[in-house]
Amino acid sequence: MAEEMDYASSGVDITLEGEAVGALIGALGKFSRPSGTLGSPVEVPGGFGGLIRFKDDYLALATDGVGSKLQIASAMQAWHGVGIDCMAMNVNDLLCVGAEPIAFVDYIAVPKPDPEVHAVIGRSLAEACRRAKVTLAGGETASLPGIVTELDLSGTALGWVGKGQEITGEALKDGDVLIGLPSSGIHSNGYSLVRKILRENQISYDQTMPVKINDATRIERFKQGELTVGEVLLNPTSIYCSPIVEMIDSTNAERGFDRDAIHGIAHITGGGLSNLLRLHKTLGWEISDPLPVHEEFSWLQNLGNVSAKEMYRTFNMGCGIIIAVEAEHAQLIVSWLQERLSGSKIIGHVRNHGRIVTHAIESVYFDEY
Amino acid sequence: MAEEMDYASSGVDITLEGEAVGALIGALGKFSRPSGTLGSPVEVPGGFGGLIRFKDDYLALATDGVGSKLQIASAMQAWHGVGIDCMAMNVNDLLCVGAEPIAFVDYIAVPKPDPEVHAVIGRSLAEACRRAKVTLAGGETASLPGIVTELDLSGTALGWVGKGQEITGEALKDGDVLIGLPSSGIHSNGYSLVRKILRENQISYDQTMPVKINDATRIERFKQGELTVGEVLLNPTSIYCSPIVEMIDSTNAERGFDRDAIHGIAHITGGGLSNLLRLHKTLGWEISDPLPVHEEFSWLQNLGNVSAKEMYRTFNMGCGIIIAVEAEHAQLIVSWLQERLSGSKIIGHVRNHGRIVTHAIESVYFDEY
Repeated sequence: MAEEMDYASSGVDITLEGEAVGALIGALGKFSRPSGTLGSPVEVPGGFGGLIRFKDDYLALATDGVGSKLQIASAMQAWHGVGIDCMAMNVNDLLCVGAEPIAFVDYIAVPKPDPEVHAVIGRSLAEACRRAKVTLAGGETASLPGIVTELDLSGTALGWVGKGQEITGEALKDGDVLIGLPSSGIHSNGYSLVRKILRENQISYDQTMPVKINDATRIERFKQGELTVGEVLLNPTSIYCSPIVEMIDSTNAERGFDRDAIHGIAHITGGGLSNLLRLHKTLGWEISDPLPVHEEFSWLQNLGNVSAKEMYRTFNMGCGIIIAVEAEHAQLIVSWLQERLSGSKIIGHVRNHGRIVTHAIESVYFDEY
Repeated sequence: MAEEMDYASSGVDITLEGEAVGALIGALGKFSRPSGTLGSPVEVPGGFGGLIRFKDDYLALATDGVGSKLQIASAMQAWHGVGIDCMAMNVNDLLCVGAEPIAFVDYIAVPKPDPEVHAVIGRSLAEACRRAKVTLAGGETASLPGIVTELDLSGTALGWVGKGQEITGEALKDGDVLIGLPSSGIHSNGYSLVRKILRENQISYDQTMPVKINDATRIERFKQGELTVGEVLLNPTSIYCSPIVEMIDSTNAERGFDRDAIHGIAHITGGGLSNLLRLHKTLGWEISDPLPVHEEFSWLQNLGNVSAKEMYRTFNMGCGIIIAVEAEHAQLIVSWLQERLSGSKIIGHVRNHGRIVTHAIESVYFDEY
């Protein structure tokens, strides 16, 4: 049997990254715009998106990049999805605080600009704007041959939420029902581990996907013929603006459920299910009936001999967003969501049994993130 | 005499960069949020900051990075100023549309996180937030060993301006007076050329600055002893929020001049004075009495045998911001500015003599950017 692999062994030192970010935040000190002025910060647990005050509303900014998924795009010269990935990573974070994304800016660093690549990324960003329903409000391309060896893409999204309408996790309580929204695939996290597993097993991006993808319509094809490994790995990240923006719109009376029934929203990214712990200081999360695991995850897990716990801490495993709702409205909300995003379903409950995440797979257990 | 150097020869192909950005923008197509909704775009000439509608106000986003100045910071392991550079590049762009910056997010890509470096950058960002009076609303650190070989830093700033209070250049007219605000040094543009000049002349960052800096208080020292080349090159970019935010605040009645007297603001970055042409479709710009040129510019120009025109197209040459104001208020405004930013002065006029930039140095002439 192959040596057991984990994310830390793939070249990304998450402890060091945590220390570095901690050092940066520690050094930041206390400056921010004074309370009561435009732009003063709003404290939100979870920290998926930074809220600031703006007159009667809050504005939120989220910034993130596509990460090492770009190296696969670069190797395959297939950039059609990376704008969607970049948008998704940012707008999905905004949705978690109940903010509607309205605008986006991109930052591209390249060793040398390539108009053909930029044209494909432009189309990808345009499609991303359509999916997220945001305005592309600007962007920057930097030629940095001494700093980057291949293309890096990141971006920043701006959203808004009415004051008092923010979703912070504060309303979470024992018995809340968890609804999982399906992911489109690996999304944009864990690619250092993906690449390591493929490298050690000498699997190329161009070869036919060795396991069958049952729900093949979720894969956005960009090659003819049989589905390749690269197409599965590069499948663009789901953008959840639809249905979530409509779900959290407090002026939308026709849904039949109360906006206040939405208690918490978590974007399942790096950290996987352990991210849920960011939403509340004392409550726990019981995932008793998870969404089906996409075939590429099981395939990678076997190839890399990765533990279930490590898989659920590194990848979304089929579930891109988890929404915690008031139990009495749960059936109505999940039906409403299913009509808009097929495959959404109830996956568990919030439990007052300590700040832990438990899962139908016993070894998948998190008490820290 | 040394071979004449220019920016294009320094390794950054600006034509290719222009083509790439053009390809991206061309491919973006027409999607944006529908007119009349939150987040729909506002057309602004010049394009220094992308404005979008938000209820009774406009919001603006600007995104930019520090660029190859980072390579000098990296070589010297001197990161104390880069957060200020990053902030400045973004908030100064927002000021040009009359927007007050209120929040900022940073994006850092590293081959491997280094807590010590992050702590220094954190302090630099904190100081930048103080200078720009903005809230740091989030940030991202990405470990991308396969994409970046050394640290890249970029950021996005958010600003706002009341509807109808935006500064677009539309009000510009023949006879408007140009006021120049002094720069602190090279700011954050042209460093590929700077590095090439130093390399070809075998000048190290650690050696004593070979020419005297007259206004030495503008250099923020980070070494003991004699002023070094590196300290001059890494001097942080001026953040112009003070005095410009106060200048453009339409509720500030005590200034004694009319807010509407401010017709245009240009941030002098890459492209130098040719940037002015972005502000108006037909009018020209006569810089008859420029600000003093900082000593490091003359030194680099001589070392690299760079033409005057190329210097003024690549660097700010001592003038970081140009403000065009109504002639009858010009004296009042320049006096008000001088009290807040010593060295500000009248440098020329807007002229209806074709869309050109002319300068006291005859060869410095731009009819395209």
